[in-house]
Amino acid sequence: MKLPISLSGGITSLLLIGSLAGDVLANKLDKSAQAVRQKNRGRKALMRSLESRSNQHPSSHWGHGKPPHGPPAPTCEDTPPQEIDAPKENVWYGLTDDETAAVAKWLFGRPELNLTTSENAGEWDNTIALIELQRPNKTETLDYLDGSGPVPTRYAHVRLNNRATVDAHYADILVGPLPITGNATWEPLEFPYTRKSQGRVRNVEPDDETMYSEWLFKISASIADITLDLWNGTALGLENDTLDVWGIDPLWQEDGRIIRWDMFWNMATGESDSGTLLPLGLYFKSDVTGRDPAQWKVLGWLYNDIFYETTEEFREAYWSPGFVKLGANVDGPWARVGQQGPVLPKDTKQPPLSVAPDGARYSVDTERKYVSWMDFSFYISFNRDTGLSLFDIKYKGQRVLYELGLQEALAHYAANDPVQSSVAYLDSYYGFGPYAFELLKGYDCPSYASYLNTSFYKSEETHTHVDSLCLFEFDADYPAARHSTSDFVAVTKNVYFTLRTVSTIGNYDYMFSYNFHMDGTIGVEVRASGYIQSAYYANNQDFGYQIHDSLSGSMHDHVLNFKADFDILGTDNTVELTSVVPVEKTFSWNGNKTRNTMQLERKMIESEDDSRLNWSFNGQTQIHIVNQDEKNKYGENRGYRILPSSGTAHLTVKNSTNLANAAHWAEYDVQVTQQHDYEPFAAHPYNSQDVHDPPVDFEQFFNGESLNQTDLVVWLNLGMHHVPHTGDLPNTVFTTAHSGVQFMPLNYLLGDASRQTVNMVRVDYFNGSATAVETFGQSDETCGVKLSPIEDELWAYQGDVIVRKFPYDPNDPFYET
Amino acid sequence: MKLPISLSGGITSLLLIGSLAGDVLANKLDKSAQAVRQKNRGRKALMRSLESRSNQHPSSHWGHGKPPHGPPAPTCEDTPPQEIDAPKENVWYGLTDDETAAVAKWLFGRPELNLTTSENAGEWDNTIALIELQRPNKTETLDYLDGSGPVPTRYAHVRLNNRATVDAHYADILVGPLPITGNATWEPLEFPYTRKSQGRVRNVEPDDETMYSEWLFKISASIADITLDLWNGTALGLENDTLDVWGIDPLWQEDGRIIRWDMFWNMATGESDSGTLLPLGLYFKSDVTGRDPAQWKVLGWLYNDIFYETTEEFREAYWSPGFVKLGANVDGPWARVGQQGPVLPKDTKQPPLSVAPDGARYSVDTERKYVSWMDFSFYISFNRDTGLSLFDIKYKGQRVLYELGLQEALAHYAANDPVQSSVAYLDSYYGFGPYAFELLKGYDCPSYASYLNTSFYKSEETHTHVDSLCLFEFDADYPAARHSTSDFVAVTKNVYFTLRTVSTIGNYDYMFSYNFHMDGTIGVEVRASGYIQSAYYANNQDFGYQIHDSLSGSMHDHVLNFKADFDILGTDNTVELTSVVPVEKTFSWNGNKTRNTMQLERKMIESEDDSRLNWSFNGQTQIHIVNQDEKNKYGENRGYRILPSSGTAHLTVKNSTNLANAAHWAEYDVQVTQQHDYEPFAAHPYNSQDVHDPPVDFEQFFNGESLNQTDLVVWLNLGMHHVPHTGDLPNTVFTTAHSGVQFMPLNYLLGDASRQTVNMVRVDYFNGSATAVETFGQSDETCGVKLSPIEDELWAYQGDVIVRKFPYDPNDPFYET
Repeated sequence: MKLPISLSGGITSLLLIGSLAGDVLANKLDKSAQAVRQKNRGRKALMRSLESRSNQHPSSHWGHGKPPHGPPAPTCEDTPPQEIDAPKENVWYGLTDDETAAVAKWLFGRPELNLTTSENAGEWDNTIALIELQRPNKTETLDYLDGSGPVPTRYAHVRLNNRATVDAHYADILVGPLPITGNATWEPLEFPYTRKSQGRVRNVEPDDETMYSEWLFKISASIADITLDLWNGTALGLENDTLDVWGIDPLWQEDGRIIRWDMFWNMATGESDSGTLLPLGLYFKSDVTGRDPAQWKVLGWLYNDIFYETTEEFREAYWSPGFVKLGANVDGPWARVGQQGPVLPKDTKQPPLSVAPDGARYSVDTERKYVSWMDFSFYISFNRDTGLSLFDIKYKGQRVLYELGLQEALAHYAANDPVQSSVAYLDSYYGFGPYAFELLKGYDCPSYASYLNTSFYKSEETHTHVDSLCLFEFDADYPAARHSTSDFVAVTKNVYFTLRTVSTIGNYDYMFSYNFHMDGTIGVEVRASGYIQSAYYANNQDFGYQIHDSLSGSMHDHVLNFKADFDILGTDNTVELTSVVPVEKTFSWNGNKTRNTMQLERKMIESEDDSRLNWSFNGQTQIHIVNQDEKNKYGENRGYRILPSSGTAHLTVKNSTNLANAAHWAEYDVQVTQQHDYEPFAAHPYNSQDVHDPPVDFEQFFNGESLNQTDLVVWLNLGMHHVPHTGDLPNTVFTTAHSGVQFMPLNYLLGDASRQTVNMVRVDYFNGSATAVETFGQSDETCGVKLSPIEDELWAYQGDVIVRKFPYDPNDPFYET
Repeated sequence: MKLPISLSGGITSLLLIGSLAGDVLANKLDKSAQAVRQKNRGRKALMRSLESRSNQHPSSHWGHGKPPHGPPAPTCEDTPPQEIDAPKENVWYGLTDDETAAVAKWLFGRPELNLTTSENAGEWDNTIALIELQRPNKTETLDYLDGSGPVPTRYAHVRLNNRATVDAHYADILVGPLPITGNATWEPLEFPYTRKSQGRVRNVEPDDETMYSEWLFKISASIADITLDLWNGTALGLENDTLDVWGIDPLWQEDGRIIRWDMFWNMATGESDSGTLLPLGLYFKSDVTGRDPAQWKVLGWLYNDIFYETTEEFREAYWSPGFVKLGANVDGPWARVGQQGPVLPKDTKQPPLSVAPDGARYSVDTERKYVSWMDFSFYISFNRDTGLSLFDIKYKGQRVLYELGLQEALAHYAANDPVQSSVAYLDSYYGFGPYAFELLKGYDCPSYASYLNTSFYKSEETHTHVDSLCLFEFDADYPAARHSTSDFVAVTKNVYFTLRTVSTIGNYDYMFSYNFHMDGTIGVEVRASGYIQSAYYANNQDFGYQIHDSLSGSMHDHVLNFKADFDILGTDNTVELTSVVPVEKTFSWNGNKTRNTMQLERKMIESEDDSRLNWSFNGQTQIHIVNQDEKNKYGENRGYRILPSSGTAHLTVKNSTNLANAAHWAEYDVQVTQQHDYEPFAAHPYNSQDVHDPPVDFEQFFNGESLNQTDLVVWLNLGMHHVPHTGDLPNTVFTTAHSGVQFMPLNYLLGDASRQTVNMVRVDYFNGSATAVETFGQSDETCGVKLSPIEDELWAYQGDVIVRKFPYDPNDPFYET
């Protein structure tokens, strides 16, 4: 199937415009930096903080030439990964700088789009929210990868933020073909979404600045007497504010109205981003339907679980005798990152660490973002909405997964207060790409890891986070396999390969790791750290523990969806369920006596009517993706098994009021659909903008299609039910906040592939001493690894690099990092 | 409560006997070594292989002085763990050599016991199966640990193998007090077992040698024509046998009869212990009730799922036209350990590894087996039945667990053939202690780990496995916690501490790891490798995959029970269940509209009537052990949460025919009982000898006792449902054969304790470069680690060291290793 769009119609006239952008940059740099440090509006603050960062010119510190890359070289032979040529183009990675610049320029030349550059745009202008590669359709791409098909034609996926209208909306459009020539056209991008609305979705929060300046701060000002009395502070939008105001996401979308609940927070006074730990327990509701603030209405106030219908009613009650005033949550050492408490015995001695004495044992095509380790290879893709994805994952020359990557992350809260009760973050709205910050060497990844950069589009600039993907091998603390007898012991090292990225979506840090093992197993792991978003602890005992003075560890479910497009020896695959079941059974050798035992039950899932699955009771049902046409020599279906490697979770809430139809993907553990080019994503980043009728309603994927030997996509949920306790202060710890699945070869080869490694030994012994030591040709080199303090390297931390795309000058010193 | 036994009665006369043992050792050394190499009767072979090993004199290679200990010193400063003095005696560890020798001598002086030394004993003699420390009762020990109580009086737990009678039986007795003086007495040890039978349990396999020489080999000989025709081999008990015969465990115990099923196996021809992969598909049933082989009866034969009632009937059918002959499983490279297949790209380069540049950061009292790391400390205990246990685990000076250790491991098979269908190994029968072999440095544990020895009693000798417990710190491949913003990034290293042992019970290698984390979390992990026990693949498709020529990956459940005797701030604890549940709910701020959301439900388990638990659907119910009398300053109960960290399993089979009442502990995931000194173990190693009325019937622990603020014991099951596939050949891999739980502080402290470590950094950045790097006082030393090939060290592998206990000579060169 080809890309089901037509580019023959549309606009053909080209308007090449020169410099629309001025040089009005970086004029509020100090203030914005201050704001970022002081305020944490959780995810709600993200859009603003990036906006402010995009106004910062890169300094000369790294502006001249390439930034430093990778860890410093120790002794031994610290060789970097070998540079190789990928066998094919990476058709998924992203646009080149030239392509992005050309598309931007071309778009600004389309009068019908009525675009304004970001720097010049106000809330009533149309802007470009995103220019990215439109990933080619799988069907077309397979022709290229496996056959004689041409490189798929490239198109840009553009997302417009059309606010020059009362009906503010986002619009996904396709622009191409690339490179931009006189034949370039644009048209609505509709086919990848279940909702057929010309790729448009309303923007329920188009007036962010006005919302604060004309509404939230004014409401806050209207009760400044109370905020001063309660907390000795105000939230007025001034430099010396000590209070902040922010609230729910998604907004309530009921009966055609857009309703928001907001609440007061103390600002962090340290420099630790602890704002989400400082709720103050006063909430207000407002109807903000439409774009005219004069039509917006305050609908009530809530304090100590008492609802007041008007500000006046609240004020009157507040200043009445007997009004119960509650305590505040105030920043302090308890809420800050950094070392605290007595130093532990011997902790100032250097702890163990992993080293790579012989350098990298994997190969990379840095330009094409292609990686090869042992018998695995894959291409890396990266985008704004979901960050890192892997494509064309091959094992021993055969594709196992066409695509593997995050689709969406939900954090669904519950509480007795209206703000926490209404929060159900769909994090692709904020985007995983822009928040994949530079990784901290020796801490986020081993000191010898190698790194790749990632980029994202923002306001006519390409931002690059240097060293934001890391690649490394690691020797696990346990072997891959072993066996002992009274005669010998044989043990195999467990050296695996990891690709990692971390995205910090406001308060929370998600660490994503893709692990590759010598036995052919692929692991997908997510760990969560960072700050919890807390609730005010009053009348909230059914929704979390009290963890500080007036603080509730607000209960929430994390559910993260991953797409795993398996292709086991071709695209014709089937889901096999193999269950271990108790049975009472007679046997030929046991007369008519029955025995209580167990047996296997194997079942193929026939269609999407039966393909929304949960991990079974006592783990008794295995989920396999097999190719029934590719049996091994013993007649068993070759395949991969999917198994949880640590806790997983799907959403507890049934028919969530917050989410409506926006996240039906979160309702089961493992869901399987027939692959379609028109169902590429489980979610849309703006599903939160229209939760009843979202752009992508995952449930609509399930329409009874056959799953019998056809191209399958597995949608997997990782996650955890998080009931934060005192141990989540100041930050949640990765030790237990961990979820993972593994894909394990199942009757796929004829034996364990880890037997191929030479990093194993066998020792024969007899009578109390070794009689033979076999090392199978492994390296016996002796060398010295010089360990040096990490601090010097940490001073090389950069943050990000920005390349201006419009107006665009490839000779600009910031070009290409 | 004191030890509820009386030592005032019993035997008081002492008969001090000199050398009862001759020097009739080591006369069949060559043959036995040969047998061990060639034969693998799975667990069934274990007793024999140890027997043969105990006849081997230690060679002079290590006989002179202490064996080498620990890894060689690299550069930097590879300091060993600091030697410290434990605050208390390790009252759980074991008997001293002197104590064991004294007890042995004393026992041989008791005419009423009618004991014969192992070397001189035949099948109709009474022998000493075990001399170990009787661990003191908890109640008494707490007085010693926490108060002014004396060191608990020491007693020896002795297990007699009384075969000088038609009614062969094992007898547990207590001997003491120690040291042995004129006041020493013995008496039946009955109080720790639910069955009150004077500590006795029948021995259903007392005649192992006769069973082979007079029964199995003769039956095999009776159809030598067929075995030669089918497999060109015989099993006659001769040097040149190429076939082996072994069968079920436990034996069938029905209507007063003892029935066994045995089958033919090819012997391994390589030196890889692959016998359990070579079943041949011919089975025979015999009634072996009683000790007179003349009364034993062949009850039938099974081949290709056709049952023949007599040998004659089988032979007649076999030699009839049209008899279907099935293929054999034959040893070969597919079944052998060692490197196989093409060498992978760059695999001959040295892979990454972990190093400890500044040496050990923990402390050990080597003699008392006491370990201290950061804010954790514990004592190590080790015994024959279950191997490693930890006692008095303290965190920040407070006991968290009084006891933590393995209780039993079940491997319950299912198949269409009578042997695999009837196998349900209860591995403490074989014992985890004797099979905790020396660990392979750099492979089983990091190269810098430190080690402790373990010992076990066998046939009047103490065997020592040097370096069979390892201790190490490890820096995980992921941090403990992190947070990023647009201004800073802060990341904490995740350095944890591990105590590990591996026990290889016949074909299977169980790796047990106890992990301690900076945030106060304790992890218990088991991984399984080694050889599967396979089934013959004929008519067996409902019980496993075909994985080789005529081979079934015989399905089985692994269930491993651990005792976790929690003491959270004292012994008065309660089980709290906190569930995340979906609710439809109204709120004060939402009029009469309901919202679909979720909330917490907290419930205390009142009694043992409700304390047999399974991990809940979607992980929505958390299990906590809390102390309701010890609330934190916010009023929350301080406690620990128990959570699965990777897959767990309980037994699939309901009311197992094989097990009857022998393993009711395997039926749930988490079970909680009131602690009693008389319920110290979930199982007895000889439960397999009387499955209907076993010495310890775990179900009887549940008798409705209160669990409300009382001393609790949690019995946890780890495990997996194992349906072996081709990837289990030759050995199962640890990558996915993994089960674990974690104990995580829950509202236990007021914040995350990992904030105490100095091994964290914070980098502030602005405008593309770092502005501050804080390293919190961590070590900034520069040093070089010299890496050398591991091979030299591997040549130091010893196996084990034997100390003779009777007759006993402390001046013997083998004394004390």
